Amino acid sequence: MIGLSSYVGVMESEINFAEEQQPLSPQANSWTNKQDQKPKVFGGFVLVHAGAGYHSESKAKEYKHVCKRACQRAVEQLKAGVLAVEAVAAALVELEDSPFTNAGMGSNLNLSGEIECDASIMDGKSLHYGAVGAISGIKNPVLVANRLLSEAQKGKLSAGRIPPCFLVGRGAHDWALSHGIPSWPSEKMATKFSLSAYRRNKRKMELAEKMEPGQTKRRRQSSENENGSGCLDTVGAVVVDLEGNVAAAVSSGGLAMKHSGRVGQAAHYGCGCWAENGCNLNTYSTAVSTSGCGEHLIRTMLARECSSAMQTEDAHRALLETMQNKFISSPFLASEDRVLGGVIVLRCCRCVETQPSQNIQGILVEFLWSHTTESMCVGYMSAQDSKARGRDFFLSTPCVCRLPLPYCLLRGAGRLQMSIADAGI
Amino acid sequence: MIGLSSYVGVMESEINFAEEQQPLSPQANSWTNKQDQKPKVFGGFVLVHAGAGYHSESKAKEYKHVCKRACQRAVEQLKAGVLAVEAVAAALVELEDSPFTNAGMGSNLNLSGEIECDASIMDGKSLHYGAVGAISGIKNPVLVANRLLSEAQKGKLSAGRIPPCFLVGRGAHDWALSHGIPSWPSEKMATKFSLSAYRRNKRKMELAEKMEPGQTKRRRQSSENENGSGCLDTVGAVVVDLEGNVAAAVSSGGLAMKHSGRVGQAAHYGCGCWAENGCNLNTYSTAVSTSGCGEHLIRTMLARECSSAMQTEDAHRALLETMQNKFISSPFLASEDRVLGGVIVLRCCRCVETQPSQNIQGILVEFLWSHTTESMCVGYMSAQDSKARGRDFFLSTPCVCRLPLPYCLLRGAGRLQMSIADAGI
Repeated sequence: MIGLSSYVGVMESEINFAEEQQPLSPQANSWTNKQDQKPKVFGGFVLVHAGAGYHSESKAKEYKHVCKRACQRAVEQLKAGVLAVEAVAAALVELEDSPFTNAGMGSNLNLSGEIECDASIMDGKSLHYGAVGAISGIKNPVLVANRLLSEAQKGKLSAGRIPPCFLVGRGAHDWALSHGIPSWPSEKMATKFSLSAYRRNKRKMELAEKMEPGQTKRRRQSSENENGSGCLDTVGAVVVDLEGNVAAAVSSGGLAMKHSGRVGQAAHYGCGCWAENGCNLNTYSTAVSTSGCGEHLIRTMLARECSSAMQTEDAHRALLETMQNKFISSPFLASEDRVLGGVIVLRCCRCVETQPSQNIQGILVEFLWSHTTESMCVGYMSAQDSKARGRDFFLSTPCVCRLPLPYCLLRGAGRLQMSIADAGI
Repeated sequence: MIGLSSYVGVMESEINFAEEQQPLSPQANSWTNKQDQKPKVFGGFVLVHAGAGYHSESKAKEYKHVCKRACQRAVEQLKAGVLAVEAVAAALVELEDSPFTNAGMGSNLNLSGEIECDASIMDGKSLHYGAVGAISGIKNPVLVANRLLSEAQKGKLSAGRIPPCFLVGRGAHDWALSHGIPSWPSEKMATKFSLSAYRRNKRKMELAEKMEPGQTKRRRQSSENENGSGCLDTVGAVVVDLEGNVAAAVSSGGLAMKHSGRVGQAAHYGCGCWAENGCNLNTYSTAVSTSGCGEHLIRTMLARECSSAMQTEDAHRALLETMQNKFISSPFLASEDRVLGGVIVLRCCRCVETQPSQNIQGILVEFLWSHTTESMCVGYMSAQDSKARGRDFFLSTPCVCRLPLPYCLLRGAGRLQMSIADAGI
C-alpha cells in the first residue's frame, strides 16, 4: 500500500486519512449527526475537479480556489431547489470562467493558434445527454451542451425531425446563437498564460522537428513529460440534488497543439461524463466525470466503465479495479507507454435509519477519485456546508505507468450520510 | 414466432429459412465441406448493409446491387492478402460511391442545403479507431477515418503530441488534404435524388411550421412516418480476414434536414461500429455495424452492446435479447415513441475439426442482423464465393415499436465454417 492515501469520514467530521476503507452498505445504515443528533435536511452535494495532469505547485492554490467557487455556485443552485443537471452546469460555468483551467476562458490553443472547446453534460434522471465539440467563440461551451440536452427533452422538432444531441464546429456555434447563447470574441478566450504556453509549445515543436526532421514520418513513443501533457486540466463536476437525482458534466480546451477539429473525450458520450439515477436494476445512482488524455479516455470509455463498476458494494475497490483493469492495463491502450487519466465518482442510494426512535429515509452519498497523472485537484461541498473544501493531490514520485496498482494510483473515498426526510420527500 | 424469418446454413449451401436456429459451439465443431469434402482455404468473409430504414421496393434492386459490389470489392482485397481493416474500407468506398445510399455521394442534405458526413472504422486487431464527423468536400469520408486510424497506429507526433482519433468539420477536411486525400467539389456530392428529397423535405417543414406556427416551441411526439425517417440508409460493413482478424466500419450522411454540425452515431465510438479480436477473456472475435436514427444509436451505444453480448454461446438469442433489452426497451430511450435501428454482426472463433481423419484448425464464422425499421438491406460474400449474395428484408407490417419481440424484429443468422489450415496459419 505504498504511496496511498485514502479517507473515510462522515461529512461533518474532519477528514481522516486511513490505509483501508470500510465498505458501505446501502441497506439500513445506522447513522448519527454529530452536531445535534437531529438529521439535517439533505440539500444535495457537489464534487468538482480541475483536471488530472501536472499542475505546478505554484498554481495549486488557484486551482483549489476555483474548485471551491465552483462548489459554492452549485450549492447556491441546489439551495434554490434546481435539479442536479442545472447545478452541475453552474459549477462548470465557474470552472470554465477561470483563466487558469483548460476549459472555456484560457483554454489551450490548437496548432493554428485557435481555441476550440469540447463539453458535455448528462442528466441521470432523464438519461438525456448534450455535447459540443470543437466549438469556437462561445464563452461557456457547457451551456450549449446543456441547452442541447434540454431542447432534446422537449421532443421532436417540426416535421418530426429528431433534435440533435451532439453538435460540432461552426454548426454548434450557430445553433448556440440561435438559442440565445451569445457569441464571445475569440481573442478574449485566450489569456496571457495560454498564449505564452502556445508560443512555448510551438518553439518546442519546431525544435523537435528540426532535431529530427523525419520525425513526423518515423514517429516514436516517448516517456518524457513533453508538451501537452502538462495541460490536461480539463474540468468537470458531479452533483446529487435534493431529490437524489444525479448529473455529471465535463469541459475542456483539449490537448495543447491539437489539430484543428480534434474532438476529445469531453464531447464523447460515455467517455467524458456519465450520470444514471438508480432504478430497479441498479441500486446506486452514479455520476462520473473524467480528465486526462482524451484519446485514452475515449478508447477505454472510462466514464461509463467507472459508472458500471459502482453497482458493487465496495465502491473503493471497484474504482481501483476499474482503473487498473479497464484503463491502465486495458488492451485498448496496450501500445501506449503512458496512460493518462483521472476520474471523480459520486454514487448514492436511499437508505433507512435503523435506530428504533427514528424511521427516516436518507440518502447515502459516497464520492471517490482516482488518477494516474502526477496531480489532480478536487473540491467538494454539501448544501449543509458553509464553505467548500478543496484538495490537491500529488503523487510522491513521478507517475510511471504499468507499475503495480497501489503505487500507480492515488485515490480517496469519502462518505456522507444525510436525511432528506425533513424536505418532505 | 409471428413475422419471423431466420436462417441457419453453411456458406456453400442454399439459405434455409427456419423458425429456430441451432446454437453454435466454438468447441470442436464437426463440419464438412459439401462440395468436395476437402476443406477450402479460408480467405475471409464480408457482410455489408445499406441501412435500416424505409427503402422503397422500387429501389431495393439498386441497394442489393451496391451491396453485392461492395462485397466483391472487399473480397478482392481479402484475396490480395490485406488485413480486415483495409478490406472493410474498400467495401465502404463502394457503398459511399453509390448515389442511392445516404453516405458519401448522394448523402442527405442538411438544413442549410449542405452535405456533412460522418464515418468511422475500427480494427479488431490493434483496437485502434478513427472517425470523422460533419466533414464536407470529401468524396469518401471512410478513407479519412481509416487514415486517422493508421496514423494513430504509428505512435506519437512530433514533440510527443498524441495523434487524434476523431476530427470534425473544417479541421477534418484540412487534415485529409494534408494527408493526401483530395478535396471533392461539394456540388458533385449531391445527386438529383438527394436534391429533390431536400426540396420535398423543405416544403414539408415549411408546411408543418405554417400549420402549427408555435410547433418549434410546443414540440410533440409523433408516430407518423415523417421526414427523415425514410432516409436512414447509412451504410456499413464487417469483415474477417484470412488470419481471423475482424474490422468494422460505418458511414452516413446523417438525418435529412439535420442542423449543420450535427454528428450522428456513425462518428461515435461504440455506437456506429465496433470490432474486437478474440483474446484470453473473449472466445469470439466480433464486429458490428449499425444503422438507423443516430441519436437512438448513440444513447444506447448499440454497436458495443451487441459486441459485448456476442460472447455467449447462442449468438442469435443474444442479439435478439440485446435488441430488446438494450435498444427497444432501453431506459435511455424511454421517452421515444419509435426506436429506429438496425445492426449487422459478425462473430468468429477458431475451432478444431473433430473427424478422426482430419485435425485441422478452422475459423467458425457466424453473421447476424436485426432491425426495428421497416426494411434493411444486406449483402454477404466469402472469399471462396464466385459472387456475392444480397438480401432485402421488409417487415410484413409497418414497424410499430414496443410490440413483443418476435413481432417487432426481423432477423437472420448465418453460419460459415471454413478451414484456414491450407493457408499455413
